[in-house]
Amino acid sequence: MTDLSFFKVERDDGVVHIAMDRPDKANSMTPDFWIELPSLLELFGSDETVRCAIISGEGKHFTSGMDLATFSTIATLFESEPGRAALALREMILRLQHTFTAIEKARFPVIAAVHGACIGAGVDMITACDLRIASADAFFAIEEIHIGMAADVGTLQRLPKLIAPAIAAELAYTGRRFQADEAKSMGLVSSLYGDRQALIDGAWELARSMAAKSPLALAGIKRNLAYSRDHSVADGLDYIATWNGGMLRASELMTAVQAKMSKTQPAFDNLLADQPASRR
Amino acid sequence: MTDLSFFKVERDDGVVHIAMDRPDKANSMTPDFWIELPSLLELFGSDETVRCAIISGEGKHFTSGMDLATFSTIATLFESEPGRAALALREMILRLQHTFTAIEKARFPVIAAVHGACIGAGVDMITACDLRIASADAFFAIEEIHIGMAADVGTLQRLPKLIAPAIAAELAYTGRRFQADEAKSMGLVSSLYGDRQALIDGAWELARSMAAKSPLALAGIKRNLAYSRDHSVADGLDYIATWNGGMLRASELMTAVQAKMSKTQPAFDNLLADQPASRR
Amino acid sequence: MTDLSFFKVERDDGVVHIAMDRPDKANSMTPDFWIELPSLLELFGSDETVRCAIISGEGKHFTSGMDLATFSTIATLFESEPGRAALALREMILRLQHTFTAIEKARFPVIAAVHGACIGAGVDMITACDLRIASADAFFAIEEIHIGMAADVGTLQRLPKLIAPAIAAELAYTGRRFQADEAKSMGLVSSLYGDRQALIDGAWELARSMAAKSPLALAGIKRNLAYSRDHSVADGLDYIATWNGGMLRASELMTAVQAKMSKTQPAFDNLLADQPASRR
Amino acid sequence: MTDLSFFKVERDDGVVHIAMDRPDKANSMTPDFWIELPSLLELFGSDETVRCAIISGEGKHFTSGMDLATFSTIATLFESEPGRAALALREMILRLQHTFTAIEKARFPVIAAVHGACIGAGVDMITACDLRIASADAFFAIEEIHIGMAADVGTLQRLPKLIAPAIAAELAYTGRRFQADEAKSMGLVSSLYGDRQALIDGAWELARSMAAKSPLALAGIKRNLAYSRDHSVADGLDYIATWNGGMLRASELMTAVQAKMSKTQPAFDNLLADQPASRR
Amino acid sequence: MTDLSFFKVERDDGVVHIAMDRPDKANSMTPDFWIELPSLLELFGSDETVRCAIISGEGKHFTSGMDLATFSTIATLFESEPGRAALALREMILRLQHTFTAIEKARFPVIAAVHGACIGAGVDMITACDLRIASADAFFAIEEIHIGMAADVGTLQRLPKLIAPAIAAELAYTGRRFQADEAKSMGLVSSLYGDRQALIDGAWELARSMAAKSPLALAGIKRNLAYSRDHSVADGLDYIATWNGGMLRASELMTAVQAKMSKTQPAFDNLLADQPASRR
Amino acid sequence: MTDLSFFKVERDDGVVHIAMDRPDKANSMTPDFWIELPSLLELFGSDETVRCAIISGEGKHFTSGMDLATFSTIATLFESEPGRAALALREMILRLQHTFTAIEKARFPVIAAVHGACIGAGVDMITACDLRIASADAFFAIEEIHIGMAADVGTLQRLPKLIAPAIAAELAYTGRRFQADEAKSMGLVSSLYGDRQALIDGAWELARSMAAKSPLALAGIKRNLAYSRDHSVADGLDYIATWNGGMLRASELMTAVQAKMSKTQPAFDNLLADQPASRR
Repeated sequence: MTDLSFFKVERDDGVVHIAMDRPDKANSMTPDFWIELPSLLELFGSDETVRCAIISGEGKHFTSGMDLATFSTIATLFESEPGRAALALREMILRLQHTFTAIEKARFPVIAAVHGACIGAGVDMITACDLRIASADAFFAIEEIHIGMAADVGTLQRLPKLIAPAIAAELAYTGRRFQADEAKSMGLVSSLYGDRQALIDGAWELARSMAAKSPLALAGIKRNLAYSRDHSVADGLDYIATWNGGMLRASELMTAVQAKMSKTQPAFDNLLADQPASRR
Repeated sequence: MTDLSFFKVERDDGVVHIAMDRPDKANSMTPDFWIELPSLLELFGSDETVRCAIISGEGKHFTSGMDLATFSTIATLFESEPGRAALALREMILRLQHTFTAIEKARFPVIAAVHGACIGAGVDMITACDLRIASADAFFAIEEIHIGMAADVGTLQRLPKLIAPAIAAELAYTGRRFQADEAKSMGLVSSLYGDRQALIDGAWELARSMAAKSPLALAGIKRNLAYSRDHSVADGLDYIATWNGGMLRASELMTAVQAKMSKTQPAFDNLLADQPASRR
Repeated sequence: MTDLSFFKVERDDGVVHIAMDRPDKANSMTPDFWIELPSLLELFGSDETVRCAIISGEGKHFTSGMDLATFSTIATLFESEPGRAALALREMILRLQHTFTAIEKARFPVIAAVHGACIGAGVDMITACDLRIASADAFFAIEEIHIGMAADVGTLQRLPKLIAPAIAAELAYTGRRFQADEAKSMGLVSSLYGDRQALIDGAWELARSMAAKSPLALAGIKRNLAYSRDHSVADGLDYIATWNGGMLRASELMTAVQAKMSKTQPAFDNLLADQPASRR
Repeated sequence: MTDLSFFKVERDDGVVHIAMDRPDKANSMTPDFWIELPSLLELFGSDETVRCAIISGEGKHFTSGMDLATFSTIATLFESEPGRAALALREMILRLQHTFTAIEKARFPVIAAVHGACIGAGVDMITACDLRIASADAFFAIEEIHIGMAADVGTLQRLPKLIAPAIAAELAYTGRRFQADEAKSMGLVSSLYGDRQALIDGAWELARSMAAKSPLALAGIKRNLAYSRDHSVADGLDYIATWNGGMLRASELMTAVQAKMSKTQPAFDNLLADQPASRR
Repeated sequence: MTDLSFFKVERDDGVVHIAMDRPDKANSMTPDFWIELPSLLELFGSDETVRCAIISGEGKHFTSGMDLATFSTIATLFESEPGRAALALREMILRLQHTFTAIEKARFPVIAAVHGACIGAGVDMITACDLRIASADAFFAIEEIHIGMAADVGTLQRLPKLIAPAIAAELAYTGRRFQADEAKSMGLVSSLYGDRQALIDGAWELARSMAAKSPLALAGIKRNLAYSRDHSVADGLDYIATWNGGMLRASELMTAVQAKMSKTQPAFDNLLADQPASRR
Repeated sequence: MTDLSFFKVERDDGVVHIAMDRPDKANSMTPDFWIELPSLLELFGSDETVRCAIISGEGKHFTSGMDLATFSTIATLFESEPGRAALALREMILRLQHTFTAIEKARFPVIAAVHGACIGAGVDMITACDLRIASADAFFAIEEIHIGMAADVGTLQRLPKLIAPAIAAELAYTGRRFQADEAKSMGLVSSLYGDRQALIDGAWELARSMAAKSPLALAGIKRNLAYSRDHSVADGLDYIATWNGGMLRASELMTAVQAKMSKTQPAFDNLLADQPASRR
């Protein structure tokens, strides 16, 4: 992680805090952003001591979204034959999407801690997170409609599966700005904090409490919520039965039940370090 | 459009305002309604200058729902062999559904502007619209349960995919009336206006602002929201990448980005007029 | 029903009231619970006079969730070869799920009337009900995360398909307790009552009003809401057209329409008693 | 039907024989083709006396596929802004697809009777039919790959759901010609006939035997095969139970069972003529 | 099993042989059939020593399909109000389907050994089996079309997911009889035997070889083939990874690999006997 | 590619020939295999001059499947807590699957050229290829059942979506060896060649003919066949319309049509080299 140019990372108590660190550019997402984020998440995914992550932004704003450099790349693509450009653009969009899907694929929960602006691709990003908290000054907008495009890195797909779809549609069509308290009342954000510092402190507290849970249970909740979102209830029930068949184990469960009954805090071991044949 | 008997139509600035015009019968949906609405939408769909539509009702109420004539048709069907009647009734219901699905299939966004009563099939209709606004006196009910039927032209399918499904179920089981402010708080309606006139003015303002957006982006948002609603997130992401691969173009995007940076209003061209081989 | 050990049952006016009756153990779900509930529902399902059900709990709490005996069974499973134990545990979970799915499969609507604690498997149970009402003292928690497990009898699958999924996720990850009024504002609960007695009275009133509706329409709403939840809108529309093709009949409909127009209360017959070849 | 320019139609005994009638152009599909075929099918769909259809081709070949005129239309589209052209081309393809989907949506079975060449869009068409028979001289090819396109009016979607998908893929990638006997051995074609006249006679015989079956049962088989193809087995079972619940009736069934036991030929009535409110 | 009236059962070496035993009535499926078959399968499912099953028929034919008694039940249903009859018939069909789905849900593979006639519901039954073998004199027909109905207990859903769907459609529409060798060439039947005795011997030999395999692996193959049939490849891959995560265990695997390398026959233990809380 | 240890690569005329090169170990799949194959495919995917690939094996056999080293890795995993081991094993299987899914995700068609043994994971691999050809001495087996496991890297998911599922099931349950000619008759293999040399020559010829096609059309066929396999026909039709909307272009199409009419060979340009922002 010594060669990060977009993010800075702090670690403590099983929590990694990934901060976007281009405060002078409102953390607009440069090419580095799209490469570093999935790399970080893959790295932490194979580190058994990581149990929860926070994503935040340095400076006055969480993020102003896509950097202009990305748009220039698109312009370059279109200097050639349009059919081939369409295929190349499709593949580029798939790759940008991959960055946020990496959040969804991470084994551990990821908390977005939002202050100031969270615009455009910023909204795409936080919809791929597991929990979203914000400071009172946070504001949001699905701005893509203003520049003549349908948002294509996740907002249209994930937001209507987080909040009431009627509200998501209205936000996508109008591109209007909405404030932290409205985001809270629609369920997009689960807690509000007074200012950025309180937000970051709150994020750490929430993340530490998550990191104290069973990492196996967290992974199970995360994967099963994503699976259930995309399948019928019957399919979802079969999937979690199959999942817990292998991953719920008597010893840990009994220990936890007993700890709970004696009102002590159960301790949960880390996962197994992840070193399969194909990576050694 | 000279031969419309149920609707009247106004046009301005890329907006079509389709008003139900049977005020003395509370705009109850006669056989003409079911034929004229999809025809209008198909007509406007092949007119490149149409970029947004409003549906409203003349008189004291938006609509009281299905007309009794439709129920009589059902009675007639059942004078013959019951198995054949079942097939014929199924086909008749499919055709009624087709009318509201035409709203969903229209290329441009459709705004429902509701005042007074919006009952029965009226609720089916507005759930197929893209945005819903209302005056303070509007009220709604899924009344079908009171006459011994499960609503079958869209409410049971679309309402739980617009608002919290638990609320949709309660409204469907009880058939209770709910007011505009409750509709707003559950997300069904996105804005409230003081009275019918303010509502219509607001609808025009909203529609004009939509019509000033890129029609290509609006079509993309509409189709992708519908697609994502019915598919997994992974499928939805692939679909929009494929969509934008062909439909996002450098020139329009760069113009819009520059307009935005210079804080001017970008202008977006109409779509290509739609004249395929099979219609000429 | 003379041999029930967990539940007690009252019947009146087409309503069955199924009360969990282990008040001294906070109605924790013993092995008897898991056997008796689906048996009761199957029994009532083949009884044409049953048109609505209520589930409530005796004593201070609705239910504290899974009994420790169930956890012990899991421990016993794990004394043998782990692969075989995984298969056996999967099958055991599928069977526990089956108990709550029996609520969803019942032909008639089921109302959960919640007071006091509704914890762990209690939440799984109420998410399988059709309507949920509560007293002001009710509180809820998805506690499984505290004992190191991902809830596996329905909460992760059904809750995000009842309320905003973002809120469901937060509740599942944190396991935090939430009160009746928060449950109401998120839509999980549709009405609040002052205390347990008012709740039970309210449940009876609601159930009686449901039992006075057409049982054919109630069955249609219930099945079609479940079908639509798990399918695309296009599929849902086709399904209800096919359903109503056979089950909507002219005579009942016309009677009900006329009753409504004359402002009298239409009366709906019971369903046909259910005696297929395979059960005689 | 007096104004048909592409097809000619014969009717007898509940069978309609729809023949492509541009023998001098090898029945290549002109703009008229795409308009007339769905109109014919819709017309026959609302005619209760039609119980089975045959599609064949006059002259030396079944069809050589898409006419060049259609390709010219595409060229015209691309004289304007590429993003708008992409949307217009998408809509044009959807409309061409609609022509063949009309075969799938017809209530009655449609038999393709193929002789000589069945190329390009001809293959798309026959994959939308319910049964395919051929004369010994018939040959087939998915030629689109030779002109640089992926077939987009149904072959890639339907062929792998009719025969072994591995074989369908090989035919799509290579575009190679295959003969009637290979088509028979892969299951694409169910019977072979010596020459065109024997084929047409065989088609009539097969169609008459289908027209003597219950039209309600034929409609049920057709719709349920299409539904099952696109859904899980569990969904398919539920759908046909719902379907037959309304459409299987005791009287017809008992008559048919008795006819079968007395080894006589049961007679089945026509369906109910189809005259819903929305069409009168 | 002392009270079986339709079936007789033999057991040996981990194999159960379930024989339809109404030879004088060509094993037509009486009400007892529909009750006893799922009971037997559930019983064997909770018996860890059962690893494979055979279904065969005594007398001259495998089965002539549904008994007339079942049709009479339908007639009785229709003496009441048609809408209620439709619901009751739907539930009856669902229950008949449940009998064959019990074959699919059984943990162990089920081999159908077919001789003589396999007609109507007999075809529905064998499509729910895992393997099908036949004697040279076997013949098959989807006869339902001849009595005016669409087959509704599984053939239309499962047959096109076993063989080329184009062939399945032709068999369903025509109801024509086809012989063992044609069944073999289309893949419906995997082996042919000279006569009934050779067939039964072959079935035992095949079943014994299956019973000598790992019961955990057989259960895994069975469930994953069913899951994959009904889901996308991506879903299927995730499901089997989750399944094998819990159920593939190092010790058994290494033993088997070593046995294979030393060319000895590995021995696989029975599964864990299945005694969950909910059944004690 | 200088550091490949498992594969060797030849290139000519837009074709890459990827040969497994561990002839002394029958090309058993070592850890290197699982890493190098997806790397190669990703590399070629971003090289616009690659239009088709061949996978073959050096020595006497195509491949004997998974190497023992992989099984040892599994054994190591199971030395720790079983629930954590289950999660780690699931992730390891997902990663192995990823190697073969890379074949399916490659933009260009991949031809498997099989001689000698193709066992276990070899079958998983070829089911992920687009075309399969073989020499007369080739043989195949889904051997996993013999070592007590359900095949988990693709065979159970993909084989029943290539050939008749009934045949795929029989091969998976019995693990029996089948020869090249049986593979041909079931459609798994599309052409047979006399010996290995003829096979390799034939693979080159086939690959060169594919490489002369439009790379845009090949990418379209490949992606749309995969999409259609996993979706309904209606979804598949919409997807290809959206795809071709962007990727079918008038100029190339008209040139190809004209070349075909003048019986010359049309030339198709390479795709656009793939250099998105996120990779620079």
